[in-house]
Amino acid sequence: MSSPDSLNKPLWSGRFDSAPDAAMLRFSTSLPFDCRLWRYDIEGSIAHVEMLGQCAILPREETQIIADGLRNLAAQIENGELNFDDASDEDIHSFIERHLTAQIGPVAGKLHTARSRNDQIALDVRLYLKDALRAAQSAVRALQRAFLARAEEHFGAILPGYTHLQRAQPVLLSHHLLAYFWMLQRDFERLEENFARADVLPLGAAALAGTTFPIDRQLVAQKLGFAAVSPNSLDTVADRDHLIESTATLSIIALHLSRLAEEMVLWTSPEWDFARLSDAFSTGSSIMPQKRNPDSMELVRGKAARVFGDLTTLWTLVKSLPLTYNRDLQEDKEPLFDAFDTVISSLQIARGVIETVVFNLEKMKSAAGGGFSTATDVADYLVRKGIPFRQAHEITGAAVRQCETSGRGLEALSLDEWRALDARFDEGVFDAVSVEGSVAARQSEGGTAPVRVREQLERAQALLA
Amino acid sequence: MSSPDSLNKPLWSGRFDSAPDAAMLRFSTSLPFDCRLWRYDIEGSIAHVEMLGQCAILPREETQIIADGLRNLAAQIENGELNFDDASDEDIHSFIERHLTAQIGPVAGKLHTARSRNDQIALDVRLYLKDALRAAQSAVRALQRAFLARAEEHFGAILPGYTHLQRAQPVLLSHHLLAYFWMLQRDFERLEENFARADVLPLGAAALAGTTFPIDRQLVAQKLGFAAVSPNSLDTVADRDHLIESTATLSIIALHLSRLAEEMVLWTSPEWDFARLSDAFSTGSSIMPQKRNPDSMELVRGKAARVFGDLTTLWTLVKSLPLTYNRDLQEDKEPLFDAFDTVISSLQIARGVIETVVFNLEKMKSAAGGGFSTATDVADYLVRKGIPFRQAHEITGAAVRQCETSGRGLEALSLDEWRALDARFDEGVFDAVSVEGSVAARQSEGGTAPVRVREQLERAQALLA
Amino acid sequence: MSSPDSLNKPLWSGRFDSAPDAAMLRFSTSLPFDCRLWRYDIEGSIAHVEMLGQCAILPREETQIIADGLRNLAAQIENGELNFDDASDEDIHSFIERHLTAQIGPVAGKLHTARSRNDQIALDVRLYLKDALRAAQSAVRALQRAFLARAEEHFGAILPGYTHLQRAQPVLLSHHLLAYFWMLQRDFERLEENFARADVLPLGAAALAGTTFPIDRQLVAQKLGFAAVSPNSLDTVADRDHLIESTATLSIIALHLSRLAEEMVLWTSPEWDFARLSDAFSTGSSIMPQKRNPDSMELVRGKAARVFGDLTTLWTLVKSLPLTYNRDLQEDKEPLFDAFDTVISSLQIARGVIETVVFNLEKMKSAAGGGFSTATDVADYLVRKGIPFRQAHEITGAAVRQCETSGRGLEALSLDEWRALDARFDEGVFDAVSVEGSVAARQSEGGTAPVRVREQLERAQALLA
Amino acid sequence: MSSPDSLNKPLWSGRFDSAPDAAMLRFSTSLPFDCRLWRYDIEGSIAHVEMLGQCAILPREETQIIADGLRNLAAQIENGELNFDDASDEDIHSFIERHLTAQIGPVAGKLHTARSRNDQIALDVRLYLKDALRAAQSAVRALQRAFLARAEEHFGAILPGYTHLQRAQPVLLSHHLLAYFWMLQRDFERLEENFARADVLPLGAAALAGTTFPIDRQLVAQKLGFAAVSPNSLDTVADRDHLIESTATLSIIALHLSRLAEEMVLWTSPEWDFARLSDAFSTGSSIMPQKRNPDSMELVRGKAARVFGDLTTLWTLVKSLPLTYNRDLQEDKEPLFDAFDTVISSLQIARGVIETVVFNLEKMKSAAGGGFSTATDVADYLVRKGIPFRQAHEITGAAVRQCETSGRGLEALSLDEWRALDARFDEGVFDAVSVEGSVAARQSEGGTAPVRVREQLERAQALLA
Repeated sequence: MSSPDSLNKPLWSGRFDSAPDAAMLRFSTSLPFDCRLWRYDIEGSIAHVEMLGQCAILPREETQIIADGLRNLAAQIENGELNFDDASDEDIHSFIERHLTAQIGPVAGKLHTARSRNDQIALDVRLYLKDALRAAQSAVRALQRAFLARAEEHFGAILPGYTHLQRAQPVLLSHHLLAYFWMLQRDFERLEENFARADVLPLGAAALAGTTFPIDRQLVAQKLGFAAVSPNSLDTVADRDHLIESTATLSIIALHLSRLAEEMVLWTSPEWDFARLSDAFSTGSSIMPQKRNPDSMELVRGKAARVFGDLTTLWTLVKSLPLTYNRDLQEDKEPLFDAFDTVISSLQIARGVIETVVFNLEKMKSAAGGGFSTATDVADYLVRKGIPFRQAHEITGAAVRQCETSGRGLEALSLDEWRALDARFDEGVFDAVSVEGSVAARQSEGGTAPVRVREQLERAQALLA
Repeated sequence: MSSPDSLNKPLWSGRFDSAPDAAMLRFSTSLPFDCRLWRYDIEGSIAHVEMLGQCAILPREETQIIADGLRNLAAQIENGELNFDDASDEDIHSFIERHLTAQIGPVAGKLHTARSRNDQIALDVRLYLKDALRAAQSAVRALQRAFLARAEEHFGAILPGYTHLQRAQPVLLSHHLLAYFWMLQRDFERLEENFARADVLPLGAAALAGTTFPIDRQLVAQKLGFAAVSPNSLDTVADRDHLIESTATLSIIALHLSRLAEEMVLWTSPEWDFARLSDAFSTGSSIMPQKRNPDSMELVRGKAARVFGDLTTLWTLVKSLPLTYNRDLQEDKEPLFDAFDTVISSLQIARGVIETVVFNLEKMKSAAGGGFSTATDVADYLVRKGIPFRQAHEITGAAVRQCETSGRGLEALSLDEWRALDARFDEGVFDAVSVEGSVAARQSEGGTAPVRVREQLERAQALLA
Repeated sequence: MSSPDSLNKPLWSGRFDSAPDAAMLRFSTSLPFDCRLWRYDIEGSIAHVEMLGQCAILPREETQIIADGLRNLAAQIENGELNFDDASDEDIHSFIERHLTAQIGPVAGKLHTARSRNDQIALDVRLYLKDALRAAQSAVRALQRAFLARAEEHFGAILPGYTHLQRAQPVLLSHHLLAYFWMLQRDFERLEENFARADVLPLGAAALAGTTFPIDRQLVAQKLGFAAVSPNSLDTVADRDHLIESTATLSIIALHLSRLAEEMVLWTSPEWDFARLSDAFSTGSSIMPQKRNPDSMELVRGKAARVFGDLTTLWTLVKSLPLTYNRDLQEDKEPLFDAFDTVISSLQIARGVIETVVFNLEKMKSAAGGGFSTATDVADYLVRKGIPFRQAHEITGAAVRQCETSGRGLEALSLDEWRALDARFDEGVFDAVSVEGSVAARQSEGGTAPVRVREQLERAQALLA
Repeated sequence: MSSPDSLNKPLWSGRFDSAPDAAMLRFSTSLPFDCRLWRYDIEGSIAHVEMLGQCAILPREETQIIADGLRNLAAQIENGELNFDDASDEDIHSFIERHLTAQIGPVAGKLHTARSRNDQIALDVRLYLKDALRAAQSAVRALQRAFLARAEEHFGAILPGYTHLQRAQPVLLSHHLLAYFWMLQRDFERLEENFARADVLPLGAAALAGTTFPIDRQLVAQKLGFAAVSPNSLDTVADRDHLIESTATLSIIALHLSRLAEEMVLWTSPEWDFARLSDAFSTGSSIMPQKRNPDSMELVRGKAARVFGDLTTLWTLVKSLPLTYNRDLQEDKEPLFDAFDTVISSLQIARGVIETVVFNLEKMKSAAGGGFSTATDVADYLVRKGIPFRQAHEITGAAVRQCETSGRGLEALSLDEWRALDARFDEGVFDAVSVEGSVAARQSEGGTAPVRVREQLERAQALLA
């Protein structure tokens, strides 16, 4: 039986006169990051070798020895007997093969039958991707539930809605929180679609053209739980769409979280003071004893930049590459792993923040009344009296201007003052300028009126059920 | 009746003391690019105003006058009576309103009832996006058909398959062309999913909170052909997901086209000489009389960079924006339009190239035999004799080395020479080293054997039927 | 004399059997955007042809005719006699040549002597770039002057400095404004360095290898005001570094402006209320009569995304292109032009905003006192009494906590209360907690103490002098 | 003396009721990547504390103890006594402080005097950046030397120059290699400029506003070897320009290397066969025994995508951040480190490849003669006879066409055949069509004629001397 060390040279080294350069080895090895795929690599190898046995390509005794050896290796890695710390193998496949050979002898080499590293790594990545997409979906669902719970808890609370970061119209806090629910709902759907396209078995493409052995790809797909088998071996080896489209979805999630993070940073500023993050998600300052910083949300916001960087790498990498495999593609894994790790942990942190943030409902309510946020209601009130919108808008603008000059709010104007602006005002204007009246009146479908937001909550709950 | 000119000031100017700065007007106007949305803007306004009439929010006589006025305007723009050349309006909505008012008088102002520019532009963009996605799908299908036709035409032709841009194994030209068919098939599916999420009516979100008027959003959705109505007004105004995910799909298409373009540039180089572009898609040189440049494909390759730039702009734009509308979002339209224009025209050019390219089948065939591209077949042949793959690989490597030294191909080795390398070689090796034999033997599902590629062709045709 | 129309076919068409496809013509023409380079193209051609005459490569009579014809054309374009509206030429060079030939006859064709379009366009772009870099520098300087003027005007005013968007320590408004001055100063320096590398004559590289005519490149450089001549013709034709590094500098400027814009959006929100934009740089709402939106700054912030998109396009375009010219490179001009247009206009808008913004100094001052922003001063006061910083930090943290609970500021604590926290407090603590005291005490070099900020102002003024 | 463990809580924890969430700790810790800065952190702390002593802010005995403790720690980390493996500190500063306190007691806490983590990390990064820029410059120089050596070695060898990947005109191999020399020369200059702007001391900005202690920043700058002191504390804390501009320069280097890599991949393809990489920089295939893949160059090409991703992260991160420090900025370090590591190792690999690549000079020479690459010379020859370039171009185009039809090269046409095309041809045409003649004739400055390339070589050598 060969020693592991003597096997630790590439399969292809025979035809070469001299060994790779040491710097080149460091530059090209993928083990430091693809070791993470060990479980998928072994799982895929077991399915492959069992199929080889079932198709009589290799004798059953041999495939049994190989499969058992692989299961044994998995157990050793699982329990820490075997680790990647000082391994100098080229990649995870070589690592596994080296140890397998050390343990079961040269029969291990038969694992290469009807398979290439090109489709082996393609398989490993798809297996990883399917798990990672499901994990991301689960983190999305958990954050959706957090938003839903807080929206239920504070049903009825009012804050200003903003456009241009100026107070625009009063809205329900629940309505605002549910806006994020729906963003995440779209994210969930996109992840589901990415999953469907990831769920296609690549194994069997071999180096690029298929194999001369009578393999049964449908059987492997069934063993590994893939919904379909890829139709074209060249495309299979060259394709990185599934990585890219998944990372694009992750980028949209990161985008949504960056908007949430921005709002939490604003809301916890002393100027806004709409919310206070729990201690668990805040940080102090080493120099300023009074500080209470929303670091959790700043990091979530910053990490979105990282995910866009990962996506940029992936696009740029694949652009203009001729078919089929080119070594450039080895660089696809680190950005993929980083994007999933970053987005899943960001979702978890966001969930913790949302579950524990304390809203300052009084401050929200009082801000909703400031800034003339019911001016539109006054204009709408005039329109209902038959005044064209443009004119109604101008009359209300004049009222706002008058209030600004005198430092008052719209609710402080007397009926006489209103009538001085336009004779058509009557008592009804006082309903129009009240915050509760304003919110309750926006009953259009999808609007902020409590009756409509209640509908939304129910629809959202149904989706999660 | 006001003159159009006097109306040419923003609705909101009443409350301001002084006019916008001239540089600011140039900086902020969107008419030069959103004028392209005129048809959608008018279509949306007609549906809106008709609904206002049907819901008794405005008198039917008035909504009739407004709708007729809008239809009249559309006809005038259509036939060139009205154009955007010297217009100094802020945006397409103001342009339309100004001319409508000039033609039907102040009743035009009632179009503002229960609607804001925030949800009006959201509507215009979704109507545009739905059309653009369908146009992209149609261009994808046309290119798929071109690949399919050429794959049928040249069924049986053989060229080298490449990995690392080194000849790897012989494959069918049809197999290679179909690889692009499947990439495009995934693109088509992604566009379909983007469409489903774009197909949601935003109108009715009003400024951000819904409206106090008893509008019927389902009715508007039905009039305009939307499958659903958006559930949350804040999300509706803030959401740019549909633009971003569609542009991400366009980027993947551009990526696929860049790979095709790279291959065509290589194949038409004198070194490869696998193909000759038609005159219609080639360009000469102003200085070098012998040149015949694949400019069409170089431009397609280059334009992928442009689409990635558009996508970068969109991500970066939306990151960290608090809800709901912020004026930054005005910058979303130019990259969106550019991405669709670029990708659709690139697809059309690629189709023209593929339909007219002349393949040099002889050159392909002879290259397929060079470079020892059947070495894997020799190794597989040894494995079938029971030799472990690693050893088979090494023996074949030695054969290649011997041939390299003597400047011959594998097919030139005599049986004695093979046996000198390993005693287990027999006559079967001559089948293994033949190009046709190699291709025919790769019968695994999705492989390059003619019988498998025929299956693929049929499956592809069924998809397009 | 040929008619312009008959000349309107590419120089290289002779060797081709059929004409380019119409879609291909639209796809490949650069005239719609490179027409902008007409002045540089003519200027470069005049220098080139005069040199041809001086070097006796062409007869002086002919070069005189050509140069005069070119000057005449320039005048015609200048005064609008000639325009690009319906021209269907491939590019600006063809447009110029066609009209020149129409006006002076076939001698115009001699302009091609010893020159290729590859180095002609390289020249045009460098001439444009030099002008554009100078224009950007000038816009940077103007904005620096605006910051300096406002810093002078409000010398002494105090606002809170922020970290994590939490109030940290009081600072001078002038100090804050000067922070932008220094960012812009670095931008100015980078533009200068970009200019130096742009200031190299490419003409003379010809198609890629130099020319067989005895041209004098130094003479052309001198005529056109270039500081140097490029050393390697292959590099000259392939090189796009100067575009990319300049656009990278523009991106950093856009980044600085996006930070300024974010601050202005925050400061003009009702929550902050530190500033009010002038009417000239604000916008109202079509639906909400009370709104006063900081659209100018939101657009500046959004347009940064556009510049990053331009840069992304440029990187991606050039990546992996073999030497020398590839048609992909035609796509370099639109992002370059867009980046300069966007950044220069953003600088101008920012200048207008800064020149006219009204600061709410009272609100700033009162905010500076809130949020315990002098807590660090208390800690420093304790350290000066010999207490280790960690302990001082903890004692002050306790004081903040006590104030938070009782809803007071640090300045409201009595000496007894301070002493209850730690016996070492004395009267000196009252100086430490005052806002003016805090600012005045930060006298380290570059710090916010008035004496230090005065130094900065003087240094800044000296730089602009 | 406290145990290290008990100190392992943040300085600011006193004011908080509950501990950070465990997921939050993992999410926010920077130690796993900023541990790399340990040497800079200690070096900066020693300079700081010595200055505190020299300025009498702390007693000399104490600063001596602290400085000695820091030096001792550095030795312990250096020799592996102390490592970061199981440390759970928030960041490198906390790690150092914890161990320092464990070793020298509470006096360690005085290191915080007049310093904040905001300016401490700013210092660490600048110290790292200066070293990294110098390392990058050194790797650039080494690659320049490799190009120069090969250009010397093969002086006189001819290969085809390409445009559009079509053979254009013959050029010297040395000329082609020197094209890369000049790209790298510009890279070297840009790194130098980045260095100058990185070479500014940030320490002393404290949290954001400067410090109340009478520190001497010039003294610290002198101790640490900085050329200047930053002028504005707010800008100092917020500024990330130096990271971004340096990474932009690295991206241009990566771009240059990607072009080189593309060419090496093409040149080593069997179709080109211009070069053979040494074994040390090639890789074989696990399945295809004949393969010899240019993996080193493919990885260099792919890694450019990674650097662009890093740059994208940095831009996006800083966009729209208000002054001064925001926690998002913690995400700046990983992309910075990754960009430097990637580019420096790519430069080293490229150097190894260039030093050891074997050029196939015969193949190059024969390719230079093919593809009618001297057609321009024929056209130039006609122009020198007084024929306008357009007509000369057309005549030569006709000659090419005739040769293409008959499968011959231009050098095979007889004088009669030339005269049949145009009566003005004479014997001189035979010089024009020879490859050596063509190269020798391109004597314009920067051209490919041996006399000019010799000049270039000398100029290049002078630059490296």
